[in-house]
Amino acid sequence: MFDNQHTPQAPARPTAVLQRRGAERVQAILDAAEALLGEQGYGAATLKAIGERAGIPTASVYHYFADRHQVDAELLQRHVRQLDECLTEAVNETTLRTLRDGVDAVVSPMLDYFRQHPSCAELWFSARHEKLAEIVQAFDESKAEQFWNLLVEHELLDPETPQLALKLAFEAGGRLFDVAFQHSPTGDDSTIEEARRLVTAYLETYAPQAEESDG
Amino acid sequence: MFDNQHTPQAPARPTAVLQRRGAERVQAILDAAEALLGEQGYGAATLKAIGERAGIPTASVYHYFADRHQVDAELLQRHVRQLDECLTEAVNETTLRTLRDGVDAVVSPMLDYFRQHPSCAELWFSARHEKLAEIVQAFDESKAEQFWNLLVEHELLDPETPQLALKLAFEAGGRLFDVAFQHSPTGDDSTIEEARRLVTAYLETYAPQAEESDG
Repeated sequence: MFDNQHTPQAPARPTAVLQRRGAERVQAILDAAEALLGEQGYGAATLKAIGERAGIPTASVYHYFADRHQVDAELLQRHVRQLDECLTEAVNETTLRTLRDGVDAVVSPMLDYFRQHPSCAELWFSARHEKLAEIVQAFDESKAEQFWNLLVEHELLDPETPQLALKLAFEAGGRLFDVAFQHSPTGDDSTIEEARRLVTAYLETYAPQAEESDG
Repeated sequence: MFDNQHTPQAPARPTAVLQRRGAERVQAILDAAEALLGEQGYGAATLKAIGERAGIPTASVYHYFADRHQVDAELLQRHVRQLDECLTEAVNETTLRTLRDGVDAVVSPMLDYFRQHPSCAELWFSARHEKLAEIVQAFDESKAEQFWNLLVEHELLDPETPQLALKLAFEAGGRLFDVAFQHSPTGDDSTIEEARRLVTAYLETYAPQAEESDG
């Protein structure tokens, strides 16, 4: 292991400064990509345009990102982390009495997030390249597992419910979100309402059968 | 404008023969594409390989098709016409007593068709290019309209049901078919079963409310 304390004669290497500057530049690049995607759409957010917006020479942008796909993926990851926090907050603030409450606790914060962050919607729904599709897929799978646990804990789902059912609920609901955002850049309300209805109706087929709950 | 009738000395052009030969060659090209897609998958079905399989020089293949996307699209259209006939037959042979009967009358013949025609599944689920996506989309929309009418006629759906609901049922069901065929080249049975369940549960929220039918 390299240890600075053993080379006292060498000038102090400003590693921390370089790292900080690197991190700042990466953030500036992602911020510029976010602004361009949100304002002008996918076609406009080229590496060149991103560099210009961020005030960073294109050559330096390439120092941090091999191509625009990598910028897209990094930005979408950043959105996913924020979206994840929003969902956690929404769940913590919700009293889950019915399956519809559970569905709303996913649909509403996601819809709000996409509406407030058009650059996220632009990447999420485009399926423009494999990396983006994988990030969305990973998010859906982790949420499906988390919501299976949550809904079973709240006795809204039968513990015998296959995990597959929650995965497919996310797939089907996700597809209707796609359609809603194809219809309108801010997500068509009627389609989103149908998404809530469809997923709720499906999950209700897995409600505990022992006694009727009037939640 | 060039007009053949002003060159009476020219030998009679065997237009009908040429047209018939053209149609036969187009069919041979599509048959070869179907075989290659089914046996070896999308990557193997290049125009060159298709020509070799059909015994037609590549240059002649280009006489009929500008590129492989056009072959894909033409072949998928041919499948869609056959699939359409299978669906019509299935509906005519089914007694539609419940919404589940209606869902099965779509899901079962489609699943059978994809299993019997792997080249169709290969094109249908790939979304490899815009032309294919448009063909699937057009099919779904026409079936959604047809089934809205059918289910309302059979008093299984409330006549107030929005057409959008049927469109979205096809979108969501279609997505689960995608997943089933990602899991397995012949379509994963558990996922297909969930697709039936999901679409049925959703449509049941639009069942006529006036009186309970015990079908």
